[in-house]
Amino acid sequence: MLELIRSLAIPNTTKIVLMSLDGLGGLPRPETGKSELETARVPNLTALASEAACGLLRHVAPGITPGSGPGHLGLFGYDPLAYQVGRGVLESLGIEFDLRAGDVAARGNFCTVDSAGLITDRRAGRIKTEASVLLVDRLKTIRLPGVEVLVEPVQEHRFVLVLRGTGLSGRLTETDPQALGKPPLPVKALEPAAVRTAEAVNAFVEQARRLLADAAPANMVLLRGFDALPELPRFPEVYGLRAAAIAAYPMYRGLAKLVGMDVIKTGATFADEITTLREHWQAYDFFFVHYKDTDKAGEDGKFDAKVEALERFDAFIPAVRALGPDVLVVTGDHATPSILAGHGWQPVPVLVWSRYCGADPVTLFAERACAAGTLGVQPAHHLMPLVMANALRLTKFGA
Amino acid sequence: MLELIRSLAIPNTTKIVLMSLDGLGGLPRPETGKSELETARVPNLTALASEAACGLLRHVAPGITPGSGPGHLGLFGYDPLAYQVGRGVLESLGIEFDLRAGDVAARGNFCTVDSAGLITDRRAGRIKTEASVLLVDRLKTIRLPGVEVLVEPVQEHRFVLVLRGTGLSGRLTETDPQALGKPPLPVKALEPAAVRTAEAVNAFVEQARRLLADAAPANMVLLRGFDALPELPRFPEVYGLRAAAIAAYPMYRGLAKLVGMDVIKTGATFADEITTLREHWQAYDFFFVHYKDTDKAGEDGKFDAKVEALERFDAFIPAVRALGPDVLVVTGDHATPSILAGHGWQPVPVLVWSRYCGADPVTLFAERACAAGTLGVQPAHHLMPLVMANALRLTKFGA
Repeated sequence: MLELIRSLAIPNTTKIVLMSLDGLGGLPRPETGKSELETARVPNLTALASEAACGLLRHVAPGITPGSGPGHLGLFGYDPLAYQVGRGVLESLGIEFDLRAGDVAARGNFCTVDSAGLITDRRAGRIKTEASVLLVDRLKTIRLPGVEVLVEPVQEHRFVLVLRGTGLSGRLTETDPQALGKPPLPVKALEPAAVRTAEAVNAFVEQARRLLADAAPANMVLLRGFDALPELPRFPEVYGLRAAAIAAYPMYRGLAKLVGMDVIKTGATFADEITTLREHWQAYDFFFVHYKDTDKAGEDGKFDAKVEALERFDAFIPAVRALGPDVLVVTGDHATPSILAGHGWQPVPVLVWSRYCGADPVTLFAERACAAGTLGVQPAHHLMPLVMANALRLTKFGA
Repeated sequence: MLELIRSLAIPNTTKIVLMSLDGLGGLPRPETGKSELETARVPNLTALASEAACGLLRHVAPGITPGSGPGHLGLFGYDPLAYQVGRGVLESLGIEFDLRAGDVAARGNFCTVDSAGLITDRRAGRIKTEASVLLVDRLKTIRLPGVEVLVEPVQEHRFVLVLRGTGLSGRLTETDPQALGKPPLPVKALEPAAVRTAEAVNAFVEQARRLLADAAPANMVLLRGFDALPELPRFPEVYGLRAAAIAAYPMYRGLAKLVGMDVIKTGATFADEITTLREHWQAYDFFFVHYKDTDKAGEDGKFDAKVEALERFDAFIPAVRALGPDVLVVTGDHATPSILAGHGWQPVPVLVWSRYCGADPVTLFAERACAAGTLGVQPAHHLMPLVMANALRLTKFGA
C-alpha cells in the first residue's frame, strides 16, 4: 500500500491538518447511556462533522486494543501489524535520545512496592518529572559488565533505559505484571540471541531495587517495550509531503520522528501547540497535531474530566479552521473509554473535511453516529490515502 | 490472526456464551416483504439487540454460501478458506468415530432412486435413524481389496463411510449431483494420489447399489465431503478458554471436538441443552450452544416453521441471561432462507452483548436492521477476537 501511494503521489500546494485526540473513543456511561463524545458540548466538532465525511477507524484488527505506538502508526498509513515498534524506542526518540543501531531501549516506570516487594502503584502516583530526575541519577550509577547502561528521565514517572553493546536483542518479555499486589517479573529471552540481554536487564533491575529501596516518592522500576531501532519507510518521501509534528508529549514526537516527520519545538499546553501550528503554517504541507488530555482522563477512569477535555479541544477548532487547511482530519489513535479506565478495542470516530469529501448525513461526531458515516469502519492505515486524495495529491491508478 | 490472539490472550474469570442458530439468516417472503426474523415475535432477542452491538457476519467470502462446517469454523475464529475440513471428517467426529491419521471419511446420505437409477429424493424423506441402521448393516458387508471399509449410521438418513488403508487421499469429487432426476455421479480424483481411492469409492458405490436395490425406505447412497483428518490450532489454547460445546446434533459436536472443545453430553432437545449449560456453568469459561431447528425448517422451505423455531429459541434467552454471562453472542453459521429451501450466501445477523459492547441504535434482531449496527458487515472469523475483547481477555497490542 505504501509503495502504491508513493508511486501515485503528486505535488500540490494543499495543506493538511491531522488532529489526533489520544484515546478519543469512548463508551456509554451506564447512568446516562451516553458516551463521553455524546455528552460533551462540542459545537465546533458538531459543525465540522456536518460538513465532513465520517466513519470509524480500527487501528490494528477487530477486538485488538492498540497501544499508542501502533495507533499512531496506523494514522500515519503504516499497517501496525507489518511495522511493529517497541515503546522503548518511541520513548527514546521522544526525548531526542541519540538511539543508535544495535541499541536496545525500554520504557521505564517508577513505581512503588511494599515491604514484601509487591507493587502498590504502577506509576507511583504519576510523580513529578523533577522527582524522576533525582531517581534517574541514582540509576545512572549502575554498571554492568560488557554493556553500557544509559538511563534518561522522560516525563512524570517515566524514564528510558538503553543498553548499548554488541550482540544485544530486544526480544524480551516485560517486568511489568500490569497488576497491583504482584512483584515485578524477571525478563525472559524470547529468542536464544536475547539470553545475554535478559541477564543484563535482570542485573540492572536487581541493582535498581537496592539503589531505590530507601527512595521516595518511588522505590522500584518497571520495564517494558524492549526493542531495537527499526527502519520504516519515511513519511515525507512516501507521501511527498513536508510533514511537521506538533506534540507536547515526547512519545508522540518520537513516533513522528521515527517516520521522518520534522518535530517542531512547542510548549506544554495545547494552546502552545496551536500557536506553533500557526507560526509554521507556511513551511509545511502536513501537520500532525496531538492532543493528550482525552487519553489521560480516560485512563484515570474520569468520565467528566474526559468530557471537559473534549470541550477544551473543541474550543480550538475555529483557530485551526481560520488557517484555511484544505484537508482537516479529526480522529484518535485508539479508544480510552472512561468506564474501562484504559485503552479499548472499540473503533474510533474519524471525520475528513475537505472541499471534495462528500459530506454525509452524520451531524454528530460520536462513536455511534459515525458508524453510519460514508467512510464506514476501516483500517486506520487506509486513512492517509484518503487524506492524500482529498488534498488532490494522488494521481489516478492506471490510464 | 490466531497467532496474534494467542499472544495477547490473558486470563480472566469472565464467562462467554456463543449461541449459534443454525441457518439463522433469512429472506423476505414475497407476500409480506418480511423475513423470518422480521416476522417472528421474539421479545427477548429484541430486548437483547437493544442492549447489544449488532452487525452481520459473512462466513466465507461475499456471495459464497457456507456449509455448516466452514460456517462454524468461522464463528470459532478460524478463516474457513485457510482451514478446510471435509464434511465426512466432521460427521465421523460427531458420532465419536475413532478417526485415525490417514483415514478418508465421507458423509453418506441414504436416498431413493427410480428404476432408471435417477434420484427421486436426496434424503429418502429423512428416514428414521432405526431404518438407517438396518441399511448400514447391509453396507457393512462390503469388502474392497486392500482397503478396510467402515460404515456407521449417524442420524436420520445420514451415515459415515471411512476408508482405512495406506496411501489414501480425500481429494475426490462427490457422488451427490445436488439435484433430483439425475443419477449419482462417479467420484473422480482431484489429484494423482487420489486415483486409487476414487476407484475404491466407486467400487463401494457399485456394491451398495446392488445391496440396496430391493431395500426400503431407501435404495441408494450419495457420498460427499471426502477428507482426511486435518490438524487445527486448538481453540482452548489459542484463546486460553476452558471451552465447552453443547449440541444435540453430532456434526456440531464433531466440529467442536475438532478444534479441541470439550463436548458435553446432552439430550435431544434444546431444553436439554440449556439444562446442560446450567449444570456445567462453573466448569467452563466459554460455551458454544447450538440450535438446529431454524436450519431444518429453512432447508425444508417452511417459512412459518422457521418463524416458530425462532420463537421457541427466544423463549430460552431469559434462562441463559439468568446465568449471568459476561459476554452473550447470538448469531448463526450461515443463512438458510426459507424461500431458498437451502443454505444461502446472505450475511447473518449477530449481536454481541457485554458491559463494554457499546450498544448501538439497532433495536431489532433481523437482517436489515443489523446491517445498520456498529459491528458492520464483517468476516465471521473476526467475531472471536471481539468476543475476547468484550470478555476483557485480551491485553493491548504494542505500548
